[in-house]
Amino acid sequence: MIAPVALAALLDEYAVHLPFHLDVVGFGDEEGTRFGSTLLGSRALTHSWPASWRNSTDAQGVCLPDALQQFGLDFDKVSEAAIDPDEVLGFLELHIEQGPVLEDEDLPVGIVSAIAGARRFEFRVTGMAGHAGTVPMRLRQDALTASAKIIVCIEKLAIEHKVVATVGQIKNQPNGVNVIAGETLFSLDIRSSDDLHRDAVTDLILEQAQCIARHHQVKLLWRQTHEAAAVACDPQLQSVLKQAVTASQLRPFFLSSGAGHDAMALAQICPVAMLFTRCKGGISHHPDESITTEDIMVSLQVLFETVILLARQYQST
Amino acid sequence: MIAPVALAALLDEYAVHLPFHLDVVGFGDEEGTRFGSTLLGSRALTHSWPASWRNSTDAQGVCLPDALQQFGLDFDKVSEAAIDPDEVLGFLELHIEQGPVLEDEDLPVGIVSAIAGARRFEFRVTGMAGHAGTVPMRLRQDALTASAKIIVCIEKLAIEHKVVATVGQIKNQPNGVNVIAGETLFSLDIRSSDDLHRDAVTDLILEQAQCIARHHQVKLLWRQTHEAAAVACDPQLQSVLKQAVTASQLRPFFLSSGAGHDAMALAQICPVAMLFTRCKGGISHHPDESITTEDIMVSLQVLFETVILLARQYQST
Repeated sequence: MIAPVALAALLDEYAVHLPFHLDVVGFGDEEGTRFGSTLLGSRALTHSWPASWRNSTDAQGVCLPDALQQFGLDFDKVSEAAIDPDEVLGFLELHIEQGPVLEDEDLPVGIVSAIAGARRFEFRVTGMAGHAGTVPMRLRQDALTASAKIIVCIEKLAIEHKVVATVGQIKNQPNGVNVIAGETLFSLDIRSSDDLHRDAVTDLILEQAQCIARHHQVKLLWRQTHEAAAVACDPQLQSVLKQAVTASQLRPFFLSSGAGHDAMALAQICPVAMLFTRCKGGISHHPDESITTEDIMVSLQVLFETVILLARQYQST
Repeated sequence: MIAPVALAALLDEYAVHLPFHLDVVGFGDEEGTRFGSTLLGSRALTHSWPASWRNSTDAQGVCLPDALQQFGLDFDKVSEAAIDPDEVLGFLELHIEQGPVLEDEDLPVGIVSAIAGARRFEFRVTGMAGHAGTVPMRLRQDALTASAKIIVCIEKLAIEHKVVATVGQIKNQPNGVNVIAGETLFSLDIRSSDDLHRDAVTDLILEQAQCIARHHQVKLLWRQTHEAAAVACDPQLQSVLKQAVTASQLRPFFLSSGAGHDAMALAQICPVAMLFTRCKGGISHHPDESITTEDIMVSLQVLFETVILLARQYQST
């Protein structure tokens, strides 16, 4: 929250009088780590808390309403935090990239074009466990080898079709050094800023995975465990960000966000835009997460320019 | 042990007088499951118990000498079980196949050409963990995807070069649905009846695995965890078994054994041969392990013919 507060100070210092009100907001609990209540802060503003959150509990069994009460807040009064959509012109979010793209591009900031939508699947490959020494290669129904082929295929299709697809989790049975795998489970997380494209690539993956399973004489089942639609950033706000980046003597660079952000909630009531700040090695959610003071200063400069440009644009309409 | 005992009865019934002594032996603890003492029975006969077995303990902490004592035996007197190599003409072992080859060939019995030697390895692939949404495909160092490519490559090389190679065990870190794998460990078990060939294929696998690791910008380390040399069955005894199979109106079929057997121990002091009996679905070490009475009768017939042929051969020399 240093940057937005510093932005307000900067506007004050330059005695800029804005033709609109500027709220600086720091949202709590974007991750929802404790209660699974993702975007809790921003969804309070957009009045979109699911009723189910009332019963959400943390690992110690504390429920969300009790945790809020211990903090001096009242679950039942969350609607009072809601803002009137008619009074909001737009939402501008500053966030670290949490990925390595800006570092790779040698740029301190990037303009977010869209927040990717994600689908997640669990794959279950069932073959036949067997003795590693006595079953010839041609008579095997090796669940792990078939899974490995599918994982390689997923990477190939993701690169070809420009989506990100990750197999992050794998569980193998019986998982013995001298036993052919009988059953292998693995996850798929696939994201794109274009939902239709993502779904088309997903269909391709499922089709080719089924082919591989048939070829290896193993059974393949899958189930979807998560789905979230992509959120496009507002083209006009993106264009203003681009002007502001150029005005700051930087090359404007657009990238999509693979991670979710509070802008996803705000997008339900107003146009949104996001500026990413470069981070070290793309590392995030880790003690090694790091950004430089210099990059924060650049981000601040771009935000300042953006607000000035928006003010000018607003006044001329 | 039904078949060998029945064989003795058969010889008796036909009043066959052999020019050599016939010992029918049923070995205990071939697997060494309780104390890790593989081939315990046969290695008593060949006087090759490792000194380390004195300190071997089971899961309850009972040591092997104590377990033997509770059974009325004396660890220190094992040398008394040793047989004189000069007095042994050969060793003939009957065993279920523990694999699906004979069933696939529609044959009740098969002649073992060799017991495969095995090497085992642990592979450690180290990449860089990352966010499944924010790291583009081209900037990933995905340990699991690189491992999957190596696993696929291992299968391809095993088929091409006619060895059996198995990746049965895999462990992935941090193993999260939305996290690119940072480190993946997996096993390799590779077997062949020809040690030199097995080693050449192993070298190919290690070379290509290193190429894949370099291409994926991950670090690859491996260490060998086990090595056992192949044991060839005696060509002359194999030839007699072949005649006996033919005399039983069956197609003689040779196959190598991927699993270890007591014949491996006996091979250190005399020529060995093995006859495999077909089992259902190749299933072994499992309650579903199953052979038919008919196949046992055929095996018995072949053993009987073999002993008769050996007797004739012995008398004519």
